[in-house]
Amino acid sequence: MSHAIAYISRDTDGLHWKKVLEEALGPIDYRALDNLGNTDDIEIALAWKPDRGLIASFKNIKLIVSLGMGVDHLLADDKLPADVPIVRIMDDGLVGQMSEYAIFWALRHHRDIDKYAASQRAKQWKQLDFVDTIHRRVGVMGLGTIGQDTAKKFAALGFPTAGWSRTARALPNIETFHGKDGFEKFLARTDILVDVLPLTRDTRGILDAAAFARLPKDAYFINMARGGHVVDEALLAALDSGHLAGAALDVFNTEPLPTDHRYWTHPKVQVTPHIAGATNPRTASPGIIENIKRLRSGRALINTVDPKTGY
Amino acid sequence: MSHAIAYISRDTDGLHWKKVLEEALGPIDYRALDNLGNTDDIEIALAWKPDRGLIASFKNIKLIVSLGMGVDHLLADDKLPADVPIVRIMDDGLVGQMSEYAIFWALRHHRDIDKYAASQRAKQWKQLDFVDTIHRRVGVMGLGTIGQDTAKKFAALGFPTAGWSRTARALPNIETFHGKDGFEKFLARTDILVDVLPLTRDTRGILDAAAFARLPKDAYFINMARGGHVVDEALLAALDSGHLAGAALDVFNTEPLPTDHRYWTHPKVQVTPHIAGATNPRTASPGIIENIKRLRSGRALINTVDPKTGY
Repeated sequence: MSHAIAYISRDTDGLHWKKVLEEALGPIDYRALDNLGNTDDIEIALAWKPDRGLIASFKNIKLIVSLGMGVDHLLADDKLPADVPIVRIMDDGLVGQMSEYAIFWALRHHRDIDKYAASQRAKQWKQLDFVDTIHRRVGVMGLGTIGQDTAKKFAALGFPTAGWSRTARALPNIETFHGKDGFEKFLARTDILVDVLPLTRDTRGILDAAAFARLPKDAYFINMARGGHVVDEALLAALDSGHLAGAALDVFNTEPLPTDHRYWTHPKVQVTPHIAGATNPRTASPGIIENIKRLRSGRALINTVDPKTGY
Repeated sequence: MSHAIAYISRDTDGLHWKKVLEEALGPIDYRALDNLGNTDDIEIALAWKPDRGLIASFKNIKLIVSLGMGVDHLLADDKLPADVPIVRIMDDGLVGQMSEYAIFWALRHHRDIDKYAASQRAKQWKQLDFVDTIHRRVGVMGLGTIGQDTAKKFAALGFPTAGWSRTARALPNIETFHGKDGFEKFLARTDILVDVLPLTRDTRGILDAAAFARLPKDAYFINMARGGHVVDEALLAALDSGHLAGAALDVFNTEPLPTDHRYWTHPKVQVTPHIAGATNPRTASPGIIENIKRLRSGRALINTVDPKTGY
């Protein structure tokens, strides 16, 4: 039995991963998805959206590494072996990218860039009234690594910032809410809603008609978490009725977003193709390398995932 | 002789200023530009782009308050009385807005939002390669209050950030350059150039063909300072040749930007109508009120301007 590392993703060939891993670990028996060879050799799988049952077919698998910080793409596989540990990447580069994405769309809304772009097309020099930053309330759903970084950066820009999480949290300069009761209060004070929750049994469909109705009129919604949080018909209805000012959506219930989906052409919706945070080998690899070393020397793993909570 | 305060600006009627000043000082003899009355009564002028010679015609003027942080709009008046002190607003709200503006356009460039918007129009799900934030170098020209805030916030977002100023400065986490020699080195390492310099004799036309040529290929330029820094023909040539990736321009050699100017329709230029930082009475008024009190009680003024340096 060898110690092969399999790269299980249809998005890229993963050769950049082979490179960064070999720089740290020396030569590795690296198997790409289209050339897995004898899968009994596979000790470790680096995985993004594996086909159902594929990982279970690796008889000697000892570690599953999620190539995303969210692990719903793995837990969706009901044949995933229950006794094999799952670790996820912790990626400062990805975290920083996510904050950039949220700040970009929030500022675009906050500073009326859409209206100024229309003025430019009309060659019209027209200054609009501005909203004082202290009156534009940002709310971040999810206060894990990404949510905390995002919330902290919004607060540093001067936005009154709140966060919501399943269980209570205390963070400097951030007003925090938790649980079901807290969710309604959180939404009611949020002008720009940023979703970075994990997708779990509890969060699927959490943004429904009732949730959007709780937001103040003209609120703006940024989803860089998972499309499964959103009841699409409810979001479209809230945009069409004029209740919401707009939405920037990076994630969708079906990806790639189907060509006939209304989001593509809705004048209030900005679509991006799941690029808010890309896993960055430079920043994600140290944690993976550490876990490979720990696995092989029998030490406790880091960044482990609890399949029960889903993160 | 009374103690009238005159509001000298064609942009707004200034009634919001009357309100915030009266809240702090009690009733004031407030004179709007279209109803100045006996100008011998005017003790203080709040001014934005005053007509040449107007302030000199106020015989008993004791203080000139610039309603912008930049004072070139005042110093352009060669009849401005040399013996009357000039103070400028120091406005945290305006400073924060300026940083928002720079960060917005920098992120728009950094994250290829233009290309993703084109993909959305084509209903095309297409992920692009990303540039790691640590490889996107931001450079801020001008390290006064606004420049320091802007540079600090870019550094906090993970961008390698440098600043350039006339005289040497040291700032935490910011690489600093100064003087003419430093300017060339500063430009050569800057992928996103943010201009927040004051407009002075030394900075007029500072961004000429040679300066743009010093920037690396595909650099992006954000001007939220003064249009007078830019040789427009040089900027257009650098955009047209493909050397520069784009420019976000909030300020122009002539404002409003003339309808026939190429900037309005240039595909690589984003035009906004001098809105990067709007003076915000909430945050700008405390400094003005303090100076009025100091003037009336004979104490030293704060936020004074040296007409020789121009800031």
